[in-house]
Amino acid sequence: MLSVVILGTGNLAMHLFRVFSATTGAQVVQVVGRNPESLRSFSEQVATTTETTSIKDADVYIIAVKDDAIAGISHQLNKKNGVVVHTSGAVGMDALTPENRGVFYPLQTFTKGKHIDFGKVPICIEAKEEQSLTLLRSLALTLSQNVHEVNSDQRKKLHLAAVFVNNFTNHLYGIGEEICEKEGLPFDLLKPLILETAEKIQSMSPKEAQTGPARRNDQKSIQDHLKLLNNDKHIALYNLMSEAIKQVYEKEL
Amino acid sequence: MLSVVILGTGNLAMHLFRVFSATTGAQVVQVVGRNPESLRSFSEQVATTTETTSIKDADVYIIAVKDDAIAGISHQLNKKNGVVVHTSGAVGMDALTPENRGVFYPLQTFTKGKHIDFGKVPICIEAKEEQSLTLLRSLALTLSQNVHEVNSDQRKKLHLAAVFVNNFTNHLYGIGEEICEKEGLPFDLLKPLILETAEKIQSMSPKEAQTGPARRNDQKSIQDHLKLLNNDKHIALYNLMSEAIKQVYEKEL
Repeated sequence: MLSVVILGTGNLAMHLFRVFSATTGAQVVQVVGRNPESLRSFSEQVATTTETTSIKDADVYIIAVKDDAIAGISHQLNKKNGVVVHTSGAVGMDALTPENRGVFYPLQTFTKGKHIDFGKVPICIEAKEEQSLTLLRSLALTLSQNVHEVNSDQRKKLHLAAVFVNNFTNHLYGIGEEICEKEGLPFDLLKPLILETAEKIQSMSPKEAQTGPARRNDQKSIQDHLKLLNNDKHIALYNLMSEAIKQVYEKEL
Repeated sequence: MLSVVILGTGNLAMHLFRVFSATTGAQVVQVVGRNPESLRSFSEQVATTTETTSIKDADVYIIAVKDDAIAGISHQLNKKNGVVVHTSGAVGMDALTPENRGVFYPLQTFTKGKHIDFGKVPICIEAKEEQSLTLLRSLALTLSQNVHEVNSDQRKKLHLAAVFVNNFTNHLYGIGEEICEKEGLPFDLLKPLILETAEKIQSMSPKEAQTGPARRNDQKSIQDHLKLLNNDKHIALYNLMSEAIKQVYEKEL
């Protein structure tokens, strides 16, 4: 069984702790955090410490903290034998100082208190040493069947793509909610459409799935919509999105 | 049992025909289309005609055709007693010429060959006559428990909101796919994230669910991302989206 120390007490640390606790192939032997208050939710189930001098020996050290704190914490693990990984999409592997380093990046959005089926979460792994890569693959496979070797440059692009499909998409949902609220309509009206839009591309390329006025270059509908908008940012987004969609399909029209 | 004539043979007409066939409260008595070829997929199961002079009597006439063809077709139904409705989000009720008119707008994206659970689809109804509204509500309730009275102005705004959460969101998925493909990574890596992003807002406001560099006003991550992009439209979208998100949250920061 692989032993794991988790460094961090935030959202991802909690999700990882929960899911490792439910597997048989790996065991979290300690959770390390600066804040005793935040450690409290772990301390009934596992050893915890606030002292970086008291970190246990383990096969894998998973640093699950904010991007700008990764390098500093990794420095505390320079003398450990296990592989030290971070969990960030945006940070290169070499931000870690220990020789035996790698990355363990679960590509998903984690919400406090919301259950995630980890078995489907893509886990992107990278390691400096070949045998550490093998070890990280074994560890990842205890959580998910969806394990991929992804290098630091690719992972940064993947993280960028995630910003488009997650952060920016969520902002579009927010605009939808705002439009509904102004009309006294429940945002619930849009929820089945939102879900179906996401489900559709599970089995169909987004390029193929695209519909709407911009795809058809239907200028009348586009102008009618623009007249209904009165938020400058929404108008600018409508125009830019429509231009971008038209550009993709103009050769077909 | 309510009798229905469907005018149109496209995607929505097919979905409506299929779902009415599975209900007990309503029956499609005829499908009307201009193109004999397109009518063929209905003709084994129901009466069909290409002649607008041969349209049967029914309680409800559902016009499911392209927006710009709605008015012309409705004119052929001026002498009918049943209620004449269209199914468009973007067209006002009064584009229809018959006195007894209304709207029956299922707010969903319909894909050829892809099953939709109609029981959850919001159906937005409107009618000129009070008793026709009651009739349309009964008809809608044979298909879905999610029936709402929505007037023409509200419906146009709802349709606009749908463009943001469906068409524009799908374009963001397309950008995600493009970024993956350029890195030689499977788009599959982003699919669980896309689904979770849509699932999250089923029980949480998008405003509350927002994450990412723009929400935190994390300029370093934003600049790092911009350096990775080389498509001008993607750069413009990244900037505009980030500005729009920052604007929503700047008071909190």
